[in-house]
Amino acid sequence: MNFASDNWAGASSKVSAALAAMGQGFSPAYGADEHSNRVKNWFSEIFECETRVFFVATGTAANSLSLAAMAKPGGLVLCHAHSHIQMDECGAPEFLSGGQKLLPIPGAHGKLSADAVGAVLDRYDPANVHGGRPVGLSLTQASEAGTIYALDDIRALSAEAHKRGLKVHMDGARFANALATLNVSPADMTWRQGVDVLSFGGTKNGCWCAEAIVFFDLDLAEGFEFVRKRSGQLFSKSAFVAAQFEAYFEHGHWLDNAVHANQSATRLAQAIETSGGARLVHPVEANEIFAIWPKGLTAHLKAAGANFYLWEAPDALPGEGPGADEDMVRLVTSFATRPSDVARFMDALNQYRA
Amino acid sequence: MNFASDNWAGASSKVSAALAAMGQGFSPAYGADEHSNRVKNWFSEIFECETRVFFVATGTAANSLSLAAMAKPGGLVLCHAHSHIQMDECGAPEFLSGGQKLLPIPGAHGKLSADAVGAVLDRYDPANVHGGRPVGLSLTQASEAGTIYALDDIRALSAEAHKRGLKVHMDGARFANALATLNVSPADMTWRQGVDVLSFGGTKNGCWCAEAIVFFDLDLAEGFEFVRKRSGQLFSKSAFVAAQFEAYFEHGHWLDNAVHANQSATRLAQAIETSGGARLVHPVEANEIFAIWPKGLTAHLKAAGANFYLWEAPDALPGEGPGADEDMVRLVTSFATRPSDVARFMDALNQYRA
Amino acid sequence: MNFASDNWAGASSKVSAALAAMGQGFSPAYGADEHSNRVKNWFSEIFECETRVFFVATGTAANSLSLAAMAKPGGLVLCHAHSHIQMDECGAPEFLSGGQKLLPIPGAHGKLSADAVGAVLDRYDPANVHGGRPVGLSLTQASEAGTIYALDDIRALSAEAHKRGLKVHMDGARFANALATLNVSPADMTWRQGVDVLSFGGTKNGCWCAEAIVFFDLDLAEGFEFVRKRSGQLFSKSAFVAAQFEAYFEHGHWLDNAVHANQSATRLAQAIETSGGARLVHPVEANEIFAIWPKGLTAHLKAAGANFYLWEAPDALPGEGPGADEDMVRLVTSFATRPSDVARFMDALNQYRA
Amino acid sequence: MNFASDNWAGASSKVSAALAAMGQGFSPAYGADEHSNRVKNWFSEIFECETRVFFVATGTAANSLSLAAMAKPGGLVLCHAHSHIQMDECGAPEFLSGGQKLLPIPGAHGKLSADAVGAVLDRYDPANVHGGRPVGLSLTQASEAGTIYALDDIRALSAEAHKRGLKVHMDGARFANALATLNVSPADMTWRQGVDVLSFGGTKNGCWCAEAIVFFDLDLAEGFEFVRKRSGQLFSKSAFVAAQFEAYFEHGHWLDNAVHANQSATRLAQAIETSGGARLVHPVEANEIFAIWPKGLTAHLKAAGANFYLWEAPDALPGEGPGADEDMVRLVTSFATRPSDVARFMDALNQYRA
Repeated sequence: MNFASDNWAGASSKVSAALAAMGQGFSPAYGADEHSNRVKNWFSEIFECETRVFFVATGTAANSLSLAAMAKPGGLVLCHAHSHIQMDECGAPEFLSGGQKLLPIPGAHGKLSADAVGAVLDRYDPANVHGGRPVGLSLTQASEAGTIYALDDIRALSAEAHKRGLKVHMDGARFANALATLNVSPADMTWRQGVDVLSFGGTKNGCWCAEAIVFFDLDLAEGFEFVRKRSGQLFSKSAFVAAQFEAYFEHGHWLDNAVHANQSATRLAQAIETSGGARLVHPVEANEIFAIWPKGLTAHLKAAGANFYLWEAPDALPGEGPGADEDMVRLVTSFATRPSDVARFMDALNQYRA
Repeated sequence: MNFASDNWAGASSKVSAALAAMGQGFSPAYGADEHSNRVKNWFSEIFECETRVFFVATGTAANSLSLAAMAKPGGLVLCHAHSHIQMDECGAPEFLSGGQKLLPIPGAHGKLSADAVGAVLDRYDPANVHGGRPVGLSLTQASEAGTIYALDDIRALSAEAHKRGLKVHMDGARFANALATLNVSPADMTWRQGVDVLSFGGTKNGCWCAEAIVFFDLDLAEGFEFVRKRSGQLFSKSAFVAAQFEAYFEHGHWLDNAVHANQSATRLAQAIETSGGARLVHPVEANEIFAIWPKGLTAHLKAAGANFYLWEAPDALPGEGPGADEDMVRLVTSFATRPSDVARFMDALNQYRA
Repeated sequence: MNFASDNWAGASSKVSAALAAMGQGFSPAYGADEHSNRVKNWFSEIFECETRVFFVATGTAANSLSLAAMAKPGGLVLCHAHSHIQMDECGAPEFLSGGQKLLPIPGAHGKLSADAVGAVLDRYDPANVHGGRPVGLSLTQASEAGTIYALDDIRALSAEAHKRGLKVHMDGARFANALATLNVSPADMTWRQGVDVLSFGGTKNGCWCAEAIVFFDLDLAEGFEFVRKRSGQLFSKSAFVAAQFEAYFEHGHWLDNAVHANQSATRLAQAIETSGGARLVHPVEANEIFAIWPKGLTAHLKAAGANFYLWEAPDALPGEGPGADEDMVRLVTSFATRPSDVARFMDALNQYRA
Repeated sequence: MNFASDNWAGASSKVSAALAAMGQGFSPAYGADEHSNRVKNWFSEIFECETRVFFVATGTAANSLSLAAMAKPGGLVLCHAHSHIQMDECGAPEFLSGGQKLLPIPGAHGKLSADAVGAVLDRYDPANVHGGRPVGLSLTQASEAGTIYALDDIRALSAEAHKRGLKVHMDGARFANALATLNVSPADMTWRQGVDVLSFGGTKNGCWCAEAIVFFDLDLAEGFEFVRKRSGQLFSKSAFVAAQFEAYFEHGHWLDNAVHANQSATRLAQAIETSGGARLVHPVEANEIFAIWPKGLTAHLKAAGANFYLWEAPDALPGEGPGADEDMVRLVTSFATRPSDVARFMDALNQYRA
């Protein structure tokens, strides 16, 4: 019963098979191979527009270099106060973007509102050098709280950004999960609502290492091959990443994986909600569940073999955090979540008596 | 007949099998898994000392972050004028080390001499802030010219560096090839001669993505986990890298691969030397061959199906570069080089009449 | 009636005379001159301890390079949400410290509380690389809100920082004003309460360009000459800065200037408070006055010849900002504030009828 | 007899008077004052074109931020192997330009040739990310060797740079000295030959702190106010720099100073050349003299009260450096060099018998 994180899962058998096949023979290095070309075209098909696609090693790199692409001296990037780039990337976005500053903005359930973003932007006067200059807005879809921006939300946020000349980045470490929830096209969830550049994550959803930066604003991608190389993010055997994406996209494998993960999360969430003693902290809209429950339940579930993380209540939840005898916990599902484990977890939950 | 580069090869079947096995099940993320622990211990056994080992995504990252570990404001790193860090990493060593400067030094056949390094260091007065301060020396073993430093060379260079307080880095993108040539222990080729930190490359020698930074000077590794993370180089599914290294080390697989590559290179080099019209630019001591031959031979070999790169004569070879009707070329062998391809290349060479 | 800012004032006649005298003759460059030596000793006398002192060009540089001195990869510096380093230095602290991240913390009247700082620090686990690692705490004395930390406040904040290994920086752009208010010794307001490094500003208080970084923690100053030089902050004719500081310190000129500025502010503040329609936003404890008053009063005072800035209500003042018919304003006094201008301003204030 | 350096001199009496006058009254901060506006217009008049002008604190900052203006990820700046940016600025050009790399190129007497620059540029293929991409060429006028580029030299070098899309920077720390030698207009020595951005130094020629970055390519200046501010180089009391430049330009004061310095150098050089035992290392074309003479002469002149630096023979002078019993020395003249000191030095020289 492993619900620790979607990055604890291995790789899907289809992805593994593709990796094994790539072991054979020779391929041009540094992305000049045919797998890479094929995958790059595939991205453009999937997103129904011309894109420029760059593979990198990690989600941190995907986010940081996306922000580097929009960097200007004195630049500011607006983001959610609990976003991964603000809280969990050890300053990589600042470091790899050459010293750009993040401007964290609070928002309920891990999401920014266009009003809050607009109010912050109103404080910046382009003629005032002291405060720096906003250059970008970063959204996370699905969010760090496991919630989803509706298409209209994305459009409204992008509009706030664009009307002041900012670029819009989407952190899509769990892009497929969000897509599965909204059941819209990749194009609809991105550039059609104003997204300029996307961190497209495959690692959490079935690959072992497949992260891509996808530019919809092609001007932003100008010279980006140098941004990536000078950051040590250009794989020599880049074809191995391409091969993973080929397996990932083939026959909708990526969406199947995401649907499975989301459905597993939904089942768990319903069981938690109806169990009595526990409550959900955020709506469960993708593959992450944040709950508060009695400390005794934590012990009971661990004893039953469940693996999950205790979670710290973020600072934006005054009065909503766990009580003295409670824990806040996070459970994450993935392509690898076994239905039998979901069932066992639900059984264990039902057996608990405080 | 693919002699384009050792990073054109796929992965060995043993490494591929290990990757496939890792796809199953769950592992703690970010290197807290048992594969990672096992491999880290294995590094210490292989090097016969306590080490600290950090996986990164690319050789560029391994080199750049090794230099970041020794970085100081105003720091200078001495290196060969044709070293990979100086010529082929797009400024990543400077960028990822926070603006450290490289000081390129010429030397025959891709190697630095202790005298040349000492002469440069003599020019720096620690009390003179203007020139900056030398903090490190970087050696490449095997070198960019496919040559090998003898153990005494490494010791003499390290001594020059250490007596002024510099740290010594070894770029071991082709570490196994050098080891196979010298037929010494990993410890003898590194810390016993004064090397403080090593870029240990597995990618060119049978893995698809397995690069490690190995610290022998444990103080240098202090806080290095932050250096790696803020550079976007911490894999979430780090266990997949560990699994590759497990296969790589098991039963001496890595050395077998290197011996095979080197022997293939030796056979090719002998054929070139005895062929008449061609000459070797550098002694062939590992798995790279640099040769000058008539342009007609290039055309002949390409027509016969050989794949290799034309190479630019580096600026340190006045008078030794190719003549007007000649090409300078590079051939690289690897674990994946087929003996039949070596034989076919030799046949094609012998069939050539200028 | 110029109350726009203390950096609008010229230089005191004593400082001007010292500058003129320095024009004559020759002095060793880069701080090796006798004026520099004399001033450096003077700093140690004034602070009653051994110090290391480095002149830089601007307050932004003083702050940013102080933070660079405590920089570590993945480092976080805690500061007030409205501090100058967070709001008004265009990302220089991040850029010049090599990508360090600022962590803004709210607090009433421009001041941090030890509790708030402790609560933030409690969230950081040194073994968790993702969040980065707190390395420093920056306090501003006098604060951006024109308020003053009591000695006990500084001690409590420093203790919170030191017990987790953080260093403590004081932004003393208005150090003399704070000292004049507290009427304590420079040592008491700094290292005796735990301050490790100080941005010591002379520019706002009578000099034209005299900013120094004063290290009390001498280990922090190790190699700092390289930090300064590689940031383009080492004056060749550094003796001119030293000469300004000589005049500044002589016969307590600096304290006289600060006392004058503070007293002028106190008189203005009292007049504002008793005037009826206006209210003070923060206690006036140094040389800055933040007030909210009717828009009509703004127009009236401008018409009378007063120069001051409209000020934006900072985001930490929900419900306390100006109403629809009100302005928030800032007035700053300095060594150059004329008593007659204070009197004229008070007259104009009293003549106003809404 | 002080010939140590032109940055050992104080300030001219005209500049000192201007500084003293600026002490009075109030001026808007950060360059919004009328002195700054006047001087900025004056620059455009002097250079006979529209310019954008930014004051900074040091020559190192002027050079480094000029290069930052042309920075691109993976960018390379070509410069002379003995240039100040390469040898004497502690890595500031790399650090302040966000990690850009310098590419040092040898050349006789401190000067680059268009052929050498072209040969280096020929090695770079814009499609090859590994080597980085050349973005700029930096020339020093007068050079570090005290020599002068002819207008045709500058034009030829700029043409090599421009035809590959590089920008051209001129380090004019001794701009006035070069102008006095060539007796051409400022426009002729800069943009008319292709210079895009100039470090315009006043400090060595009569000011105490007056350095400006002058953009002729106005696109390069786009957003440069943020580059300067985030580097801690925006003076609050910027009007004091403007006041120095006003005095500097008025009635050709700057050119008078330079002519005086150059003539003093010429007299000294002639005396050295005709003295018998000494020889000049480089042609004396501005205000710096590099000579080799017997160690006995060094001692004799020091005893007579002369102050100058022993100089290290740069590495590009094989066989031309000082012999075992010889010293290489540097003498620098300035606006403050007294004719009586020149005469005394010549007397002392003539009195020397080996």
